Amino acid sequence: MDDWLNKVNWPRDGLVAAIAQDADGGRVLTLAWMNRDALARTAETGEAHYWSRSRRKIWRKGEESGHVQKIKSIRLDCDNDAVLLEVEQTGGIACHTGRHSCFFQQLKNGEWVAMDPVLKDPRQIYRK
Amino acid sequence: MDDWLNKVNWPRDGLVAAIAQDADGGRVLTLAWMNRDALARTAETGEAHYWSRSRRKIWRKGEESGHVQKIKSIRLDCDNDAVLLEVEQTGGIACHTGRHSCFFQQLKNGEWVAMDPVLKDPRQIYRK
Repeated sequence: MDDWLNKVNWPRDGLVAAIAQDADGGRVLTLAWMNRDALARTAETGEAHYWSRSRRKIWRKGEESGHVQKIKSIRLDCDNDAVLLEVEQTGGIACHTGRHSCFFQQLKNGEWVAMDPVLKDPRQIYRK
Repeated sequence: MDDWLNKVNWPRDGLVAAIAQDADGGRVLTLAWMNRDALARTAETGEAHYWSRSRRKIWRKGEESGHVQKIKSIRLDCDNDAVLLEVEQTGGIACHTGRHSCFFQQLKNGEWVAMDPVLKDPRQIYRK
C-alpha cells in the first residue's frame, strides 16, 4: 500500500524539498532533497534518508558522521510537494561544519555573518 | 553593494528554496521559492517576497490575503543555496487553506491526516 507515496506531487525531476526541524528546541536544521525511494526508506527505517544531487545517490543522514536524524513525525505541505521532518538530531549536530544547524549564516547590515558556534571540529567528525 | 546576493549559490534555474518559520512558537509555515530579485526585495522591504513557479512572477506573500510575513531575520545555509526566514505571520495564517502552517498533513499509519484546524474559511480570506 503505497497510496501515501502516490499522494506526493513528485515534480518532473522526482525530487521534493525536505526540511528537518529539531524536535528539541525547534531549530530548522537542514534542507535536503528526497526522491520517492528516500521518503519510503525514511518512513520504513525511522531515520532520515535523502537524495544527494551531487553524488546522485540516496544517503542515510549520518552514515559517515554518526549524526543520524531519528524521525518523530513526517508532514506534507498543502501542495503535496514539500516534506517536513521532526527529528531527534543525534549528537546535536546537523551541519558538516560541526554546527547545530546548517542555517548558521545570518544577514546583518548587508553581510552574511556566521552566528552559531562550531560544536565539534569537522576533522574529528569525518576522520576514518 | 550586492555582495551578499552574489554569495548565494544560485542554481541554473535561478531559484533557491526559502523556508519561513514563525518567530512566535517556531512552527515551520511555508516552503516557497526565491529568485535573486525576490530575495533582494525581501531584504529591502522587510516583507517576504517569493517567485511563483506556476504564475512565473514575483509575489509578495499576503498581497491578496493580507497574511503578510514580516521579516525578523534572514539566514543562509552552509551550501549557500537555501534560505530560512524568521517571520512574524500576520493573522497567524500562512496557508491558503486557512491554517496556521502549510504543513498540516501528518503521516499516520500509512495515511496523510490533516492535523491542524482551519482558522478562517478561505472564502472569507480571498473574497474580493
